[in-house]
Amino acid sequence: MKIITDKKELQAFTKSTTKSIGFVPTMGALHEGHISLIKKARGENEIVIVSIFVNPTQFLAGEDFAKYPKKDEADKKICTLAGVDILFMPDINMIYGSDEVTIKAPNVRGFVLDGFKRPTHFDGVLQIVLKLFNLVRPTNAYFGRKDAQQVILIKQMVENLFLPINIVDCPLIRDLNGLALSSRNAYLSDSEKKEALKISASLQNATKLIVGGNMNIDEIKNVMFATLDGIKIEYIEVVSLELKQLKKVELKNTIILVAVQIGTTRLIDNLWI
Amino acid sequence: MKIITDKKELQAFTKSTTKSIGFVPTMGALHEGHISLIKKARGENEIVIVSIFVNPTQFLAGEDFAKYPKKDEADKKICTLAGVDILFMPDINMIYGSDEVTIKAPNVRGFVLDGFKRPTHFDGVLQIVLKLFNLVRPTNAYFGRKDAQQVILIKQMVENLFLPINIVDCPLIRDLNGLALSSRNAYLSDSEKKEALKISASLQNATKLIVGGNMNIDEIKNVMFATLDGIKIEYIEVVSLELKQLKKVELKNTIILVAVQIGTTRLIDNLWI
Repeated sequence: MKIITDKKELQAFTKSTTKSIGFVPTMGALHEGHISLIKKARGENEIVIVSIFVNPTQFLAGEDFAKYPKKDEADKKICTLAGVDILFMPDINMIYGSDEVTIKAPNVRGFVLDGFKRPTHFDGVLQIVLKLFNLVRPTNAYFGRKDAQQVILIKQMVENLFLPINIVDCPLIRDLNGLALSSRNAYLSDSEKKEALKISASLQNATKLIVGGNMNIDEIKNVMFATLDGIKIEYIEVVSLELKQLKKVELKNTIILVAVQIGTTRLIDNLWI
Repeated sequence: MKIITDKKELQAFTKSTTKSIGFVPTMGALHEGHISLIKKARGENEIVIVSIFVNPTQFLAGEDFAKYPKKDEADKKICTLAGVDILFMPDINMIYGSDEVTIKAPNVRGFVLDGFKRPTHFDGVLQIVLKLFNLVRPTNAYFGRKDAQQVILIKQMVENLFLPINIVDCPLIRDLNGLALSSRNAYLSDSEKKEALKISASLQNATKLIVGGNMNIDEIKNVMFATLDGIKIEYIEVVSLELKQLKKVELKNTIILVAVQIGTTRLIDNLWI
């Protein structure tokens, strides 16, 4: 595996190759969720490129940018073992200048759900992803469904800006207890981790209703609110793949999303129906 | 010359070719200024692609979008004669959807000069140029220095978003009387055209001062204001190639810009020192 820190070196490589490139952009602190993306990329492309860059523009003031988990050495080993060809780890000055041209998430879809709770967050996500796409020039780019709104907005950016890139959304990965994997789980104490299991339990209870034929969104939400009793809930929403409010659950066109705070840690989870 | 209206057809072509592509994006109503860009592109690339698209998102409410001059048949002839390979003339629905990911001009450089007078104008310019760049995938793209701030911001976008495109800025072209060519000159009456000659005269008078060794910006502006006596002036500014205010004229790093209104027509002109 080659580690590249210079964007010009990466550009020179990606411009010169005609091989298919699978790309997995990350903020590091890699876990099984990331590894599943890398493995899928490895199976579907001649070249696999992973980036690790904790992107400042997607953090709001007061969020956890400064303390975001960093595990560079472990991450390098994980990427080597997973068969990554190029690991791109740029310095912040390599990526951002001053007074830049920026990207703005869609006025509606970018400012509901997480975009409502974290306004301008998705502007920063789209900005870094577009920069990385233009450097890496991937054939396929891999994102987890864990960040549902993120992958939907990235697909929209690709469509709106006519980028010749295939966006692959990949299953959310859970630990043995059902907790959705996230680099931010590292912030949780043992008791908080136990409390956090109510999140996946709420989605399991929603699933039971739907499997039983109940497509009523109010009833689904009520069951979830009840399961999450005692937890600070940011939102529970049921939307279409276009992030529009639904009147009832539509098979293959529904995402149930939940965002909560456990202690000082913000956690999200979801279920694609 | 092939006329393409379908973006997918254009994409299929530009993705398949390995030849160098020179690109001239326009809003049509082509004049000698555009032709000079096309000729330069013709001389420097294997394939020349011109686009004609009157881009709604760069017009502000109340501006001349609806009445912007359209000369499709004449434009096609001009492009054929100039040796264009592909003329891309998309429909608006081919380019824009609803609730899009958008581009935002830089907070400072995008909102001075024309960006101050026409806020969000450059957001729309950068949006359409980025969309077209991603469809055309040019090696070189050609813009006139007439729209000085525009070409500078496009260069900045290419730098910020790491686009592998060379931006070529080309000389401003004037008619025999000195009037800077613009599709909007079509709005001028004969007497307004005569009045408009004061604009280039003001830049000539600025040049005389500079050639005489006077680099004092206040004095240059004063001469220009005097030359433009009787005309409604929007601004006269002297800035660096980074659009920063200068204390005195710096050779090869100075643009003198002027924007005026003649009747209901807004005209801009400039001089790169």
